Amino acid sequence: MRPSGRAPEQPRDIRITRHYTRHAEGSVLVEFGDTKVICTASVENKVPPFLRGEGKGWITAEYGMLPRSTGSRMGREAARGKQGGRTVEIQRLIGRSLRAAVNLEALGEHTITVDCDVIQADGGTRTASITGGCVALVDALNFLVAEKRLPRSPLKQMVAAISVGIYRGTPVVDLDYPEDSEAETDMNVIMTDQGGFIEIQGTAEGAPFDQAELDRMLTLARQGIDRLFEIQKVALAD
Amino acid sequence: MRPSGRAPEQPRDIRITRHYTRHAEGSVLVEFGDTKVICTASVENKVPPFLRGEGKGWITAEYGMLPRSTGSRMGREAARGKQGGRTVEIQRLIGRSLRAAVNLEALGEHTITVDCDVIQADGGTRTASITGGCVALVDALNFLVAEKRLPRSPLKQMVAAISVGIYRGTPVVDLDYPEDSEAETDMNVIMTDQGGFIEIQGTAEGAPFDQAELDRMLTLARQGIDRLFEIQKVALAD
Amino acid sequence: MRPSGRAPEQPRDIRITRHYTRHAEGSVLVEFGDTKVICTASVENKVPPFLRGEGKGWITAEYGMLPRSTGSRMGREAARGKQGGRTVEIQRLIGRSLRAAVNLEALGEHTITVDCDVIQADGGTRTASITGGCVALVDALNFLVAEKRLPRSPLKQMVAAISVGIYRGTPVVDLDYPEDSEAETDMNVIMTDQGGFIEIQGTAEGAPFDQAELDRMLTLARQGIDRLFEIQKVALAD
Amino acid sequence: MRPSGRAPEQPRDIRITRHYTRHAEGSVLVEFGDTKVICTASVENKVPPFLRGEGKGWITAEYGMLPRSTGSRMGREAARGKQGGRTVEIQRLIGRSLRAAVNLEALGEHTITVDCDVIQADGGTRTASITGGCVALVDALNFLVAEKRLPRSPLKQMVAAISVGIYRGTPVVDLDYPEDSEAETDMNVIMTDQGGFIEIQGTAEGAPFDQAELDRMLTLARQGIDRLFEIQKVALAD
Amino acid sequence: MRPSGRAPEQPRDIRITRHYTRHAEGSVLVEFGDTKVICTASVENKVPPFLRGEGKGWITAEYGMLPRSTGSRMGREAARGKQGGRTVEIQRLIGRSLRAAVNLEALGEHTITVDCDVIQADGGTRTASITGGCVALVDALNFLVAEKRLPRSPLKQMVAAISVGIYRGTPVVDLDYPEDSEAETDMNVIMTDQGGFIEIQGTAEGAPFDQAELDRMLTLARQGIDRLFEIQKVALAD
Amino acid sequence: MRPSGRAPEQPRDIRITRHYTRHAEGSVLVEFGDTKVICTASVENKVPPFLRGEGKGWITAEYGMLPRSTGSRMGREAARGKQGGRTVEIQRLIGRSLRAAVNLEALGEHTITVDCDVIQADGGTRTASITGGCVALVDALNFLVAEKRLPRSPLKQMVAAISVGIYRGTPVVDLDYPEDSEAETDMNVIMTDQGGFIEIQGTAEGAPFDQAELDRMLTLARQGIDRLFEIQKVALAD
Repeated sequence: MRPSGRAPEQPRDIRITRHYTRHAEGSVLVEFGDTKVICTASVENKVPPFLRGEGKGWITAEYGMLPRSTGSRMGREAARGKQGGRTVEIQRLIGRSLRAAVNLEALGEHTITVDCDVIQADGGTRTASITGGCVALVDALNFLVAEKRLPRSPLKQMVAAISVGIYRGTPVVDLDYPEDSEAETDMNVIMTDQGGFIEIQGTAEGAPFDQAELDRMLTLARQGIDRLFEIQKVALAD
Repeated sequence: MRPSGRAPEQPRDIRITRHYTRHAEGSVLVEFGDTKVICTASVENKVPPFLRGEGKGWITAEYGMLPRSTGSRMGREAARGKQGGRTVEIQRLIGRSLRAAVNLEALGEHTITVDCDVIQADGGTRTASITGGCVALVDALNFLVAEKRLPRSPLKQMVAAISVGIYRGTPVVDLDYPEDSEAETDMNVIMTDQGGFIEIQGTAEGAPFDQAELDRMLTLARQGIDRLFEIQKVALAD
Repeated sequence: MRPSGRAPEQPRDIRITRHYTRHAEGSVLVEFGDTKVICTASVENKVPPFLRGEGKGWITAEYGMLPRSTGSRMGREAARGKQGGRTVEIQRLIGRSLRAAVNLEALGEHTITVDCDVIQADGGTRTASITGGCVALVDALNFLVAEKRLPRSPLKQMVAAISVGIYRGTPVVDLDYPEDSEAETDMNVIMTDQGGFIEIQGTAEGAPFDQAELDRMLTLARQGIDRLFEIQKVALAD
Repeated sequence: MRPSGRAPEQPRDIRITRHYTRHAEGSVLVEFGDTKVICTASVENKVPPFLRGEGKGWITAEYGMLPRSTGSRMGREAARGKQGGRTVEIQRLIGRSLRAAVNLEALGEHTITVDCDVIQADGGTRTASITGGCVALVDALNFLVAEKRLPRSPLKQMVAAISVGIYRGTPVVDLDYPEDSEAETDMNVIMTDQGGFIEIQGTAEGAPFDQAELDRMLTLARQGIDRLFEIQKVALAD
Repeated sequence: MRPSGRAPEQPRDIRITRHYTRHAEGSVLVEFGDTKVICTASVENKVPPFLRGEGKGWITAEYGMLPRSTGSRMGREAARGKQGGRTVEIQRLIGRSLRAAVNLEALGEHTITVDCDVIQADGGTRTASITGGCVALVDALNFLVAEKRLPRSPLKQMVAAISVGIYRGTPVVDLDYPEDSEAETDMNVIMTDQGGFIEIQGTAEGAPFDQAELDRMLTLARQGIDRLFEIQKVALAD
Repeated sequence: MRPSGRAPEQPRDIRITRHYTRHAEGSVLVEFGDTKVICTASVENKVPPFLRGEGKGWITAEYGMLPRSTGSRMGREAARGKQGGRTVEIQRLIGRSLRAAVNLEALGEHTITVDCDVIQADGGTRTASITGGCVALVDALNFLVAEKRLPRSPLKQMVAAISVGIYRGTPVVDLDYPEDSEAETDMNVIMTDQGGFIEIQGTAEGAPFDQAELDRMLTLARQGIDRLFEIQKVALAD
């Protein structure tokens, strides 16, 4: 029995609100239950040094949590003078995942930075960030087309992410914080809407997991992500 | 004529939403027009080293802006490895102002940290932070009473803040970004609901200002702040 | 009764010594009683990135205290790896104040950095820095004229600063450390020799202050600053 | 055809040399072909703050590369003043993996830090670090037993890691640098000698991968890791 | 011919002014010609962690240059966020040298920090710092005796330092900046008033030096330092 | 009697292994007894900003110790976010010494960075670094000739370094850690194979040393360094 009463294959209520703040080219509030993340996509007319003169673009991501997005207050990373290891790991994952959505050659010499800022955390902030960040990214790409800075959107495919894990012996999807902090295995799965895997990160926090458990978790993830693609599609149709 | 069409003495629409996020002891979304700040007040059972063993408490504040809360993206302070001078200046102002609201001796050995995170900026983020932060602080103090960790709230008085300035020769209240970026003088006024001044910070960005202009700005500030105290009171009555 | 025996309207002995060190284009030792600050103005043939190509110049300031300029030794900021919040706040104030003295368009593409280093502190280091820094700045501007790098000095007006406050219920001018550490209200006033205000920063450390107290403090400040302009003038006439 | 001429299921020559340096409680040179990593395990009589008083121990890891371990010189992280994102990500992975090998309750209040320093890099430095680091860890645990600081080794199981990937359309094991820099998919697999998975991290750098490719990669990984457990066993039998 | 017209064996005018600032237990302005350094010695009732509980004291030093103590402005180390390599090297040298003057066991659990801040630089700042710092240190030790915190001064011997070098083929003493920047060899010699060497640091910037040149430089240094001990003695006799 | 049983004038077994790692233009493992340092020389086609456009090259050095190269684990400098004072001091010494070996004008606009990373420490790591680093540097210079990027090697002379000291009253050469940690005086001597001194750094940790002891130490150093030049020559002849 899950703490929330959900069935093993049942994700939380998921909501995507576009145009959440007014300055960014793409701005989304994504909610996976009580997890709330603001994802903004910002366009700049330049590329990082390693890409200069190559005629292609770049997608990068940054991640942060408001100090009191969590149960007890965390020190502010800006005040401590560095981003923690978990932050660095997560923002690299978001960046890699979102780059898979875009044809960087067709993006031209633009950089799109997707900022994912958690205003309330209840597990799954990285999967929410990727799922919501992809929608903000689509809006930013469409902005470039609307502004006639690109002839057509360089979007290749949609990308979404969900967590799966083994909680008290049972594979479950979309873990909230009470499950996450106790799960034996926690796995983040990032897929394309064509059905391919972009990234799989599974970690046994407790007992190791075996091939059968892995297969079951991947099945749950696939189903959950299919639901996310529908929600993204509805949000983008508004 | 102000860019927004407001009269000189007319503040923007101001809204205070309590219980905005669920983890903090006090959590407020404060909106001064398009300026939106999340203010959380977090209670900890400890005091900074310079107060240890003195039996009194401490109120401190931290301030941040989401990278794309502004018209063009600002670098994330956590990624750059330090808080900028403006950030430091603002969070010190917020902390000083909110300490004036509380009897620190009666607070006992608790620290309350008020985090003010700007999710959308349109001028006046520091005055919004103080005004909303004071409401979050009241909720955190009441939490300590409800938890029987304090016999009664150590609140001495409410504190609120508003900006005034001279825009194209005319003194105006509650400047938005288009006004702020062009004003000859910009002044932040922080007052108590007893009518006293806590802090006045006035800067001539262009021409110096004289005593008559100062007096007019202070009158506008007093009127604007009276309106803020009403809004705080209504919010706290919910 | 003030600890120093001074009358409420009586500033300390104030001395300005020009040509204090030999390398800088402007170099001043300013003394407000026992507060001693070395102010140097250094000219560089370049401007910060945000001004490049605009044909105008820039004035900036940096502030520091020798570790044992104070009663007990403070950690050296260079060794701790960052400037503290108070330092950042003060150097921004000095820079803003001194920029008001100069026509930046007429300065051409030069940057003048005014370094204010406190070698002995007894209250009022920021007002001494502004008052002495303005004299160092004048010398640096005159150096540019003497070197034929500017046709005439871009000085618009002299700037000076003094503190006022409420000490044991009485408004007083030019607080020394024993007064400053105990004052209910502390206010720094920066004015031009044309009689306009450049900046007012007043903070109630204890009880809030009211309009009458504010008016009395501003009167004291005006009188004190008039005295400073005379001392600057004498120093520059040497 | 692989650049090295190896068959798809053929790992590189792998060597583990114990007692490589003389100060550490465990010290191993691990070689996966031309990739060479020094892994030292250091025992300390203390635990991190979050574990104090819990009676259990901790395993952590740090990772570094000598500046010229790579084809072109990388800036030294100590000189740049921070560890890069890739370094942070890798050392967190090593630490998590090695913690799975040990019963932390039975370790008592000791911390073992496994330092993995790459002296020559040719792909697979993180898998070599985990595989060699586990041997250094076993030596450090046995040192604690030999010194009578623990009654018996708290080792639960051996842990080893290997990379798999899809190189020019073919799943292969233990990628060297020329393969790694060109692979469509790169996956690191960490397993126990009981056959369970500790961690799977697979990333599609190019085209997404599908379930069949995933299954094939996991089969290759399992075979490769079995070979690693034999090599660890031989090394520890010396 | 030396640029200053001095004879090879002639040091600059050297002055030591005690009680230069009023807060520190020892405060000295030392001048070697145009090189001017403020040396303060600050006493604290504690020792660094590595000495705790050993019943002995510690002497340490920090060094800094005001940004415009030099011909062109140097960036402020506090603003850049770190001390440069030259600063670190110099302050370690000063600390080692001054520790040789004191019986640390007899100092008890006190730390004396000698801050050497260069307000005007013309070569030889490190030798001036050691020579003046030793006088400030003596005053701080005597303060501890006067305050009855120590029964007698733990001073073992006086320490002083001078530079020698080979300038255009001729060994000379006490190099000023024009000589220093051109010298083939530069050597700092630190001695005790008993005639022993505490430290010798000689560097060939141009051609290597031989034993005869070394001997000649050491003779010059010995003579110059004897003069410094006289000046220290006169200063301390005041 | 020395702890190792060596005669006072007897250095440790010294070995230089070239081509130790495969990526660097020069790569040497140097062993002074149990002290083992990897020295790599890396060539880059650029010079630091202060040399741009001058047509000459630069030699610089960086130094590091693996965390467990020592008896107890030292914190990793990359993780602490800064290089310690000792590290900075040593790498500046290595850089200065190796620059004396090369005609920088004849090097053209190349920078050679010599990285000295200690994998096992037993005293004398800086002298080993200079001695081994010079061999790596020669290989890098010869690489530039072989690649036809320079017409001939800009090597002026070989450079080597050894420590001498006074251990229990007796001058000895090439101190190992047990001697070094107890020596009254420790001196590092860097010479050219032409017999000139490049640098002398002698420090009395205990009693001051006198001229006779200095002379004896320099004689020991000269003999020891002559042995080092033979070993360098043999290594380079392979």
